[in-house]
Amino acid sequence: MSKEITPRSEDYSKWYNDLILKAGLADYSAVRGCMVIKPYGYALWENMRDVLDKKFKETGHENAYFPLFVPKSLFEAEEKNAEGFAKECAVVTHYRLKNDPNNPGKLIVDPEAKLEEELVVRPTSEAIIWNTYKGWIQSYRDLPILINQWANVVRWEMRTRLFLRTAEFLWQEGHTAHATEEEAIVETKQMINVYADFAENFMAMPVIQGVKSANERFAGAEDTYTIEALMQDGKALQSGTSHFLGQNFAKAFDVKYITKDNKPEYVWATSWGVSTRLIGALVMAHSDDQGLVLPPKLAPIQVVIVPIYKGEESKAIIDAKATEIMKNLKDKGIKVKYDNDDQSRPGWKFAEYEMKGVPVRMALGARDLENNVVEVARRDTKEKNVLSLDQIEAQIETLLSDIQNNIFNKAKTFRDENIVEVNDWDTFVKTLDEKGGFISAHWDGTPETEEKIKEMTKATIRCIPLNNKQENGACILTKNPSTQRVLFARAY
Amino acid sequence: MSKEITPRSEDYSKWYNDLILKAGLADYSAVRGCMVIKPYGYALWENMRDVLDKKFKETGHENAYFPLFVPKSLFEAEEKNAEGFAKECAVVTHYRLKNDPNNPGKLIVDPEAKLEEELVVRPTSEAIIWNTYKGWIQSYRDLPILINQWANVVRWEMRTRLFLRTAEFLWQEGHTAHATEEEAIVETKQMINVYADFAENFMAMPVIQGVKSANERFAGAEDTYTIEALMQDGKALQSGTSHFLGQNFAKAFDVKYITKDNKPEYVWATSWGVSTRLIGALVMAHSDDQGLVLPPKLAPIQVVIVPIYKGEESKAIIDAKATEIMKNLKDKGIKVKYDNDDQSRPGWKFAEYEMKGVPVRMALGARDLENNVVEVARRDTKEKNVLSLDQIEAQIETLLSDIQNNIFNKAKTFRDENIVEVNDWDTFVKTLDEKGGFISAHWDGTPETEEKIKEMTKATIRCIPLNNKQENGACILTKNPSTQRVLFARAY
Repeated sequence: MSKEITPRSEDYSKWYNDLILKAGLADYSAVRGCMVIKPYGYALWENMRDVLDKKFKETGHENAYFPLFVPKSLFEAEEKNAEGFAKECAVVTHYRLKNDPNNPGKLIVDPEAKLEEELVVRPTSEAIIWNTYKGWIQSYRDLPILINQWANVVRWEMRTRLFLRTAEFLWQEGHTAHATEEEAIVETKQMINVYADFAENFMAMPVIQGVKSANERFAGAEDTYTIEALMQDGKALQSGTSHFLGQNFAKAFDVKYITKDNKPEYVWATSWGVSTRLIGALVMAHSDDQGLVLPPKLAPIQVVIVPIYKGEESKAIIDAKATEIMKNLKDKGIKVKYDNDDQSRPGWKFAEYEMKGVPVRMALGARDLENNVVEVARRDTKEKNVLSLDQIEAQIETLLSDIQNNIFNKAKTFRDENIVEVNDWDTFVKTLDEKGGFISAHWDGTPETEEKIKEMTKATIRCIPLNNKQENGACILTKNPSTQRVLFARAY
Repeated sequence: MSKEITPRSEDYSKWYNDLILKAGLADYSAVRGCMVIKPYGYALWENMRDVLDKKFKETGHENAYFPLFVPKSLFEAEEKNAEGFAKECAVVTHYRLKNDPNNPGKLIVDPEAKLEEELVVRPTSEAIIWNTYKGWIQSYRDLPILINQWANVVRWEMRTRLFLRTAEFLWQEGHTAHATEEEAIVETKQMINVYADFAENFMAMPVIQGVKSANERFAGAEDTYTIEALMQDGKALQSGTSHFLGQNFAKAFDVKYITKDNKPEYVWATSWGVSTRLIGALVMAHSDDQGLVLPPKLAPIQVVIVPIYKGEESKAIIDAKATEIMKNLKDKGIKVKYDNDDQSRPGWKFAEYEMKGVPVRMALGARDLENNVVEVARRDTKEKNVLSLDQIEAQIETLLSDIQNNIFNKAKTFRDENIVEVNDWDTFVKTLDEKGGFISAHWDGTPETEEKIKEMTKATIRCIPLNNKQENGACILTKNPSTQRVLFARAY
């Protein structure tokens, strides 16, 4: 199997798919729109999950688990939410198969095992969770409830892409219940901050925090906060959202609490989530034509040591030294792999770990050992250096930290160069077509105009940035008055 | 809400349900047969998962993730497996809901969105995984594949019980592929050993390892290894299984590899799993009429400190000391909670943490502090001791280890006292009715006899213990010749 991938310049979309498949992150499956997350991809997800889970717990949240299925009557209770997801949900209608009387060895759905009420496979869990919270909340003493769930969800998408848009995906969904509006808003903002911190400091992916326009809001939310990242092809990718749900779900499920003053009040809600989509974002933000470029803080393998030897004697000496280095690196908490597999040549291994985005590669040869040095290559810049083996562990540690910073800075420079202020429609269209990126432009604030711009250009309002500068201007399309610029982009 | 639970002696089954609900492990849900795992129960599952996951990785396995849905044509490919699960599977037939034209605000299944091929919600993943492995395996170099998955599965059970038997449950399922029969058998045995080690050394629950009879074998397996535990009511509970699948799935999905000698051969398979059922086992193995008794190695909270104070000044002094103790315990890796909530009295807190099974409770009073002592209560024996605060952390560490051992020994003594050799039918029936436990008895080896015994007594063969003594005897029911005793019990 050739390990070559289509260059980005030739076909960005094909480059992305090639990379996912050849780096061993995921594979297609026999189920329409569903993918298999392969061990290397899953290890990446585990690392992301562990960091996020720690952050959730540090901010007072606990994990729990709610049912996969939502009875239709609960699903439809919050009307906007139901309307938003009804068109793309998998529905369980029967609970048994039976032998096909006309076709030995084959099974058919047993018509006698039809459910009285259909079950929706959760596309998101507000409905089932708020129906449960109803039983848990009586008084202000029961609040807040700060719960997160790691789970799979299903949204029947017509066009799917590995990681970015799949019928089933893995995610976490936080669902919190609060006594006051203010507290719920603080929570909503806190969690988008957690996501931004994770994206920038772990994924090395700069993001813009902002609020969604009404058109792009989560179905059932009063406000949706988002982090938006820029991919190398100039398209934006929504990477995490945090929703202030107001009292919408409390009203739909009649969840009231008794205040300190002994009055019944509806409960305030938030929900927030990130998904395996982040793996797609990570791939597209940093990788190149040779393969993945992974930030050291999330890489399943941070350092790979490849021995270069001729003959058994030479191998034994290198094995011993590599084992020592490996132990010392592990003691520093560095994830290291020693690949002394006899079946493949060093050149093949170099290409393989380049493809897999391992941040640091050490090539350890017999002559190097005599000179007490090692050749160290970094994945991000492809720079190679011969380093002294004295205190090599500390040097590697510094290098990993440099790589993490460099990847972020490179992505940030690219992102910053691709936010442009545009003031007229022709430049708006031209910029979208020729350059992409975020376009900061005035908008008259109406859903109609946003919809029209989308129809004409495929660009959407990614967000109204937080702490946005207020300035008077004219809408890019209608020339109607506007008080602020918003960020437009074509998006994944 | 009263925290009293039904005593075991009055109604064991009700005791179990009361305990699960009142200790906050789980709750019923709006979905038939599905439960909500509450934060305390989920924290327990996380601890179990983390220990097991580490063991899986230490034995060379990697995690991955496969689709939730199995197309019907794949599901039916391995006939025995399909037959075993067809009667209890949730089936997705449609992918969209639409507005009910006769009922504004309500949704109905959109008949135009019927799937061409129905999707089974996975009851287990052999089919979807072996269909995937087919694409991953060409030569002996691709083997072994050692993959585990943490996932939810659905089996449409008619009678459900919290944790023990629910329509949806969480589990892990290992699925490995090997070049030789021998290697697959070694893997099967290795994993039942991993489970036994986990059950005994972490859950403090003694288990018997053995092989299932043909009747009790996993659908599609050549051999099923099991660990069987004994609950306090004398019923057995299958706690984990590891299956040698032979070449059944390789043949059903046509998965062949090219040997070193360049010949095509079918691949050999294993699968193995444990589930959230283990939480039910843990509860029933150790708990008492006051609540949970959790083994320290898995307890979400290992030590709780409750302050006993009068007035703010006294509280401040105790707060300071408790904070110091808490820090020192945390430094030792002990999970400690300081409950200085003003809203509840100490007595209420004592009962609450007893209910939750926290292994060690420290009651820290003003007078105690003056005397440099603290009252320490252990949950398992309810013994209280006044200990010096000097080196209290080391004393607590020892105590936790003592509790872990004591819980195991207590369960083991009970289990050992409840394995009896029985040689005649009347005693067999009498023992089952009056005492329960494992009955070691001769069996003629036929499925028919096993089935008859099950019909007559509800007892099943739990396993043929590993390294079973060979001895001639007469079948307990048919008096036909037998070469070994097997273990019978009524089971969950």
